[in-house]
Amino acid sequence: MTKFSFDIFSTDGAARRGRVTTAHGTFETPTFMATATAATVKAMLPDNVRACGVELAICNTYHLMLRPTAERVARLGGLHKLMDWPGPIVTDSGGFQVMSLAKLRTINENGVTFRSHLDGSPHELTPERSMQIQNLLDSDITMCFDECTPFPSTEEQAADSMRMSMRWAERCKKAFEPREGYALFGINQGSIFEKLRHESAAALNTLDPEGYGIGGLAVGEGQEKMFETLDFTLPALKPEKPRYLMGVGRPDDIVGSVLRGIDMFDCVMPTRSGRTGQAFTRRGTVNMRNARHLDDNRPLDEKCSCLACTRYSRAYLHHLFRSEEMLGPILLTTHNIQYYQDLMRGLRTAIETKTLNQFAASFYEDQARGDIEALS
Amino acid sequence: MTKFSFDIFSTDGAARRGRVTTAHGTFETPTFMATATAATVKAMLPDNVRACGVELAICNTYHLMLRPTAERVARLGGLHKLMDWPGPIVTDSGGFQVMSLAKLRTINENGVTFRSHLDGSPHELTPERSMQIQNLLDSDITMCFDECTPFPSTEEQAADSMRMSMRWAERCKKAFEPREGYALFGINQGSIFEKLRHESAAALNTLDPEGYGIGGLAVGEGQEKMFETLDFTLPALKPEKPRYLMGVGRPDDIVGSVLRGIDMFDCVMPTRSGRTGQAFTRRGTVNMRNARHLDDNRPLDEKCSCLACTRYSRAYLHHLFRSEEMLGPILLTTHNIQYYQDLMRGLRTAIETKTLNQFAASFYEDQARGDIEALS
Repeated sequence: MTKFSFDIFSTDGAARRGRVTTAHGTFETPTFMATATAATVKAMLPDNVRACGVELAICNTYHLMLRPTAERVARLGGLHKLMDWPGPIVTDSGGFQVMSLAKLRTINENGVTFRSHLDGSPHELTPERSMQIQNLLDSDITMCFDECTPFPSTEEQAADSMRMSMRWAERCKKAFEPREGYALFGINQGSIFEKLRHESAAALNTLDPEGYGIGGLAVGEGQEKMFETLDFTLPALKPEKPRYLMGVGRPDDIVGSVLRGIDMFDCVMPTRSGRTGQAFTRRGTVNMRNARHLDDNRPLDEKCSCLACTRYSRAYLHHLFRSEEMLGPILLTTHNIQYYQDLMRGLRTAIETKTLNQFAASFYEDQARGDIEALS
Repeated sequence: MTKFSFDIFSTDGAARRGRVTTAHGTFETPTFMATATAATVKAMLPDNVRACGVELAICNTYHLMLRPTAERVARLGGLHKLMDWPGPIVTDSGGFQVMSLAKLRTINENGVTFRSHLDGSPHELTPERSMQIQNLLDSDITMCFDECTPFPSTEEQAADSMRMSMRWAERCKKAFEPREGYALFGINQGSIFEKLRHESAAALNTLDPEGYGIGGLAVGEGQEKMFETLDFTLPALKPEKPRYLMGVGRPDDIVGSVLRGIDMFDCVMPTRSGRTGQAFTRRGTVNMRNARHLDDNRPLDEKCSCLACTRYSRAYLHHLFRSEEMLGPILLTTHNIQYYQDLMRGLRTAIETKTLNQFAASFYEDQARGDIEALS
């Protein structure tokens, strides 16, 4: 059996280049996960996800507990087998989705009771039940059940919310079944308040989980506040553990967060945007539905090695989206995943060679150039 | 350059085992094409279509003339380049779709005027324009522009319709630009009337196209009438040319038609059914939405080599369709295409070994068994 571990090979400023080892293999950090909410990366075959360089997938406790249910996933052999993803899997705890999706939810010290957004059936999520579900799913990295503090909140509201999440984290730690190669991550909360983030960090450091989630960011506070919060929060965490900025983000959010010492990211943006026709490229975002692509025989991004960019023209991608053909979302999701993975690879190499500042400067410059000129 | 040719290697009764050579490569017959209406096989990456054994794709004149337009496809390098399908491509003439989809259509001796079902814009399709469009698309096998005689029709209506299609076929032949490796197929019409089918066959034999479409079948007449019509029509066609039964069909339609001497098929059924949750298997059709699959860890079809059957359980496929995840249509379309290709491969081998009757008997027996027993 393999122990869960995090090895940092090199650093550049606050940024870290490492590798996480789990029961189901390793992943290089900084990493960007593939979002597989309902046990599938939307519009993608797993082989094509892996071909882009993705090593880690994230599935969703809330969605999977409702359908097909955690007990059924366990009977079917766990998530890795069910969805043909032999590599490492993170599951989020359900805390965020239960508050954003479920109906008639009531939250108290014990946990959250709610009705399913699918069929109105009653359910309960507590720290103990969330641990049990994530165990049944066979997740390599279990996230503590927490409350994602809404933004904006007063300092008092943020303190109450964070302290309950810290009490829940203790219950999670007690309920989590240790298994070789499996990890529990605690989640730092405290909104944008330095004092609260430090109090949360201290509580988590006492709990000593295998890694940290940074929660309650990218919820409307803006990039500047988010970066500020990372600046005062990350130094308060034990440096030898991986740091996962949950739900982030756009490419420029990622570059700025890696510079500040984040190791792991997840966000629906590359997959969701891929389905609606928005591409991420080295020169910013491109809307494939725009009529400027009608006769454009050039690739979406000439520096990209993905299927969409090496085999097809912008004109064809445009045609697929205009015709509402599924191959449009398939190809553009592939491209966006490849773009994010290329970005992460670039960041990892830059940290290794201690050229991260140059990399970031060049990244921002390219993004600011905007898309290639339209054909006349 | 390669000449268009059809070589028959072996026969078993009326069935033929052959190979068609085109400007863009060869395909083995009997063959089943992949439906790529709008220049994409719905829900599929071309590499995965090819991996199932598909050698020939069929695109649609009506759909492509409206979007992205034939002139634009030509400017973008033709269909093969546009859709990354280097192999042979058939295009249908638009005659069927203009009558079933377009608005305010009027048909007369000259052709059809209509309004686009997409935006109401006015268009005209004539034999000459259909040939021009299929040329612009760079189709290897151009189909004559014809009227698909509605069913039921009186003998007089069917005769009038067929005779106009034969006059149009002469205009198509004049308008078709001969190019090495490219072919024009004439389309036999005449509804279910032996005299008319023979009259149409005689007209086409005089025209001497590279192959024959058999049109106006699978439009409501039923399998028995369809087979009867093939029985009296096919002997009237020159035996050395390929015969393409247009828009057919279900697996049992295909087996019965190959027995009668058909070489080529196309049908939306495997792809359309794949998107709605219906699977074709060696033991008949299976509805993946059915709750019986909830806990079924077995593959959809244990004898199938496709991605869906080798990597996933029925329970997972069921989950994907219940959750409306795109991977459901992607995997089930893959499976259905693979099933049809396996069936064609089986038919080809059976003709080579002169065991087609045994193959057909065993096929019907397996189909009649129905799906595997549900898990208790």
